[in-house]
Amino acid sequence: MDAHDNAKLTPPKMTAAEVSAFLVQVFPQFAIGRSYKIEETRHGFARMHMVYGDHLLRPGGTISGPAMFTLADVAMYAAVLATIGPVALAVTTSLTINFLRKPEPRDMIGEARMLKLGKRLAVGEIGLVSEGESELAAHATATYSVPPH
Amino acid sequence: MDAHDNAKLTPPKMTAAEVSAFLVQVFPQFAIGRSYKIEETRHGFARMHMVYGDHLLRPGGTISGPAMFTLADVAMYAAVLATIGPVALAVTTSLTINFLRKPEPRDMIGEARMLKLGKRLAVGEIGLVSEGESELAAHATATYSVPPH
Amino acid sequence: MDAHDNAKLTPPKMTAAEVSAFLVQVFPQFAIGRSYKIEETRHGFARMHMVYGDHLLRPGGTISGPAMFTLADVAMYAAVLATIGPVALAVTTSLTINFLRKPEPRDMIGEARMLKLGKRLAVGEIGLVSEGESELAAHATATYSVPPH
Amino acid sequence: MDAHDNAKLTPPKMTAAEVSAFLVQVFPQFAIGRSYKIEETRHGFARMHMVYGDHLLRPGGTISGPAMFTLADVAMYAAVLATIGPVALAVTTSLTINFLRKPEPRDMIGEARMLKLGKRLAVGEIGLVSEGESELAAHATATYSVPPH
Repeated sequence: MDAHDNAKLTPPKMTAAEVSAFLVQVFPQFAIGRSYKIEETRHGFARMHMVYGDHLLRPGGTISGPAMFTLADVAMYAAVLATIGPVALAVTTSLTINFLRKPEPRDMIGEARMLKLGKRLAVGEIGLVSEGESELAAHATATYSVPPH
Repeated sequence: MDAHDNAKLTPPKMTAAEVSAFLVQVFPQFAIGRSYKIEETRHGFARMHMVYGDHLLRPGGTISGPAMFTLADVAMYAAVLATIGPVALAVTTSLTINFLRKPEPRDMIGEARMLKLGKRLAVGEIGLVSEGESELAAHATATYSVPPH
Repeated sequence: MDAHDNAKLTPPKMTAAEVSAFLVQVFPQFAIGRSYKIEETRHGFARMHMVYGDHLLRPGGTISGPAMFTLADVAMYAAVLATIGPVALAVTTSLTINFLRKPEPRDMIGEARMLKLGKRLAVGEIGLVSEGESELAAHATATYSVPPH
Repeated sequence: MDAHDNAKLTPPKMTAAEVSAFLVQVFPQFAIGRSYKIEETRHGFARMHMVYGDHLLRPGGTISGPAMFTLADVAMYAAVLATIGPVALAVTTSLTINFLRKPEPRDMIGEARMLKLGKRLAVGEIGLVSEGESELAAHATATYSVPPH
């Protein structure tokens, strides 16, 4: 049994619905439930859905970098919550994003996977795709500073 | 005379006012002039001002990561425009941001400096501070794919 | 049939043995065959083996960061070669590495996967593990500037 | 008086000679004094010199990426030592390096500047130049996990 099997057997500390409710409460200015939907959480994993809107565009008719950064960052935050439970003050300490293909103007999906959960730092990677596509539009790695858990 | 002196002697291809007018035109959904102001451009340099508003906050009462990413990304775009002239389709290919200190809920300044302007790629670094502070709240490096210039 | 199936069906441009012979030729100061072994190549993929030696250590008895950087960088180069064929002058333009767990003083494996192969840039991710472990010791993303192919 | 003036007034915890002696002791496999020389330390700063040798080359007759990574990483370690004193077990947690210009086959200088010294993490940037040049050959940002200090 390897680490992946272990991860499958450990239930998430928060379901998708619980992460959503938590984000609505601590992050009211962030349009959870309308523009962003949490589709699934697992131990060490979260999948988020970003609903398309004109405000996400940049010159060239493609989704803007800041919109993709936001999706990556919040998907990672959801994966942290799913793994260690409701901690409002987990904060991003660094994020590297590579923009790989220009996404069409439609919904996007972000999948965050924990690479390491340490005592003080969580590191994960996030893949972003346009809905219905298999090739990555962007790829990010992020580090979160996490409180004692 | 070193590279810095050379940079001081080369006039920017676009003034702050010209970069602003260009961004309003190609990027209408982006609130240039209201939420973001271009304060200064030089060859290889731009300084942007992000006006504080509640929508920029995250849990803990501090400016959100996506807001700072946006300021860094747009400041770098302004520095690219100032250096090579009006090119709508310069695109960010990668960006790494380190969040260093939690910024107070007030205006922030982003200063972008070009580290390299190649034929196909521009690389720069961006320092972000809260208005009136000298210590960096965040630091980013970004790569832009640029058209022939 | 998705992108992964396509990748499985496209044969590599160079086998592991061909990549090894090429690196010995263009990169004689690099100990291919002795300290580094290419175990497998596929279209968009390469796996390298780094043989343990005392020169790889750092304080604390763990493999040094520069040794892991080297393994990540060369594994990515091997994946580029496997995908586009023998091009000596592909060069790394950027690399981000996250060190996740301190590796024991023994052999390490690096697996590089192409995330994007564009006309001018190749982007990939590289996972590093100690031999016999399943958890990542380090994770990197790298961008290579590639010649016309 | 701003932060820069403060930094100038705070003496380093270790001089260049003390950092050298410390690295020789804890890091004997690393050729301090022969291939790498610490030229200067200040509070939040270190400058290192890497002596040219054929083993640093890569195809094309330019200094290899791993050699530049090593210079950046060790310069940052020296800056950490200069700022918090002799701590063997400070470890790099992440490093992002952008390769900007191909350095000639000659000595290189790395200058590391601390951007933040927190209780658990130190973040810095490192500029690398060929000796006698003013334009950066590479630029890196690095995060170190530091013990209580």
